[in-house]
Amino acid sequence: MAPVGPRSGEAIFASVERVNAELFTLTYGAIVRQLLTDLEEVEEVNKQLDQMGYNIGIRLIDEFLAKSNVSRCVDFKETAEVIAKVGFKMFLGVTASVTNWDAEGTCCNIVLEDNPLVDFVELPDTCQGLYYCNILSGVIRGALEMVSMKTEVTWVRDMLRGDDVFELQVKLLKQVPEEYPYKDDE
Amino acid sequence: MAPVGPRSGEAIFASVERVNAELFTLTYGAIVRQLLTDLEEVEEVNKQLDQMGYNIGIRLIDEFLAKSNVSRCVDFKETAEVIAKVGFKMFLGVTASVTNWDAEGTCCNIVLEDNPLVDFVELPDTCQGLYYCNILSGVIRGALEMVSMKTEVTWVRDMLRGDDVFELQVKLLKQVPEEYPYKDDE
Repeated sequence: MAPVGPRSGEAIFASVERVNAELFTLTYGAIVRQLLTDLEEVEEVNKQLDQMGYNIGIRLIDEFLAKSNVSRCVDFKETAEVIAKVGFKMFLGVTASVTNWDAEGTCCNIVLEDNPLVDFVELPDTCQGLYYCNILSGVIRGALEMVSMKTEVTWVRDMLRGDDVFELQVKLLKQVPEEYPYKDDE
Repeated sequence: MAPVGPRSGEAIFASVERVNAELFTLTYGAIVRQLLTDLEEVEEVNKQLDQMGYNIGIRLIDEFLAKSNVSRCVDFKETAEVIAKVGFKMFLGVTASVTNWDAEGTCCNIVLEDNPLVDFVELPDTCQGLYYCNILSGVIRGALEMVSMKTEVTWVRDMLRGDDVFELQVKLLKQVPEEYPYKDDE
């Protein structure tokens, strides 16, 4: 009998349309370079990447819900696990893990050992302070906002800054109770 | 016995690392939007996309040659076929066809019926004149330049402008004889 319930990230990833990862990596690199040229300030580039990610996240959540068969998560803990195990696999083909929960279950870290965004990337000295992968934090923030969770997502560790993994802190700020029919709350 | 010679685009595409096509599409859309905001003039955006594509192409050719087992093409005709049949498949997962050869075999059109870059894309009226997929023409131009072919690549048909396919004209301007050791010719 076919299994019921959420599909594994692996199975979904195998079934969705995909493009070559190197093309994606180089295309993403081209965006970052463009922003560095246009905006000059590294801090502005970080903000812009986060905003682009947010805009992507609010759309990507639809694909995620449609393809993953994930039903409503019971709490933020389950949500974080789903992002790490299903979300990262489904979109980037890598798996992440969740660590460092606080006592309230409203803050955790997502650890990424493999990250296709940074293949072949080395930051020049002029880019100290750049969060090269800031689009990812924006995607998570945007996607979660669409399922009524306001979060703050920040980098804790970054391989391009010499750390041995990528690590994002995801902090739940507010869980907006959902109402039917849906209303924009902003 | 295992086949010798070039691998099919299909086989290569199946073996390379990949990411979710929708993520790629949305990320590319974010670039175009960013350029439209920053540069304002549609003509400048076209140029910038082409330049970004060029920079990607000069790097992507290495992955292409490494993974495809394609050996030196005997002429421009074979080169165009390889781009259409192997290149597009390997990077975007779609196949293109080559048509409209001129008598000299130095100019042809590449026709693309399926193009993951434009999924969900609709251009507003303010973007008339935009070649949304101009990154592709840049990629081809850049990649060919690295194998000593100077080309001019222009859009002939564009589904976002109401045509029924995407069609690129690729014109060989100059074939630079290769010298060993390689020298930069610019």
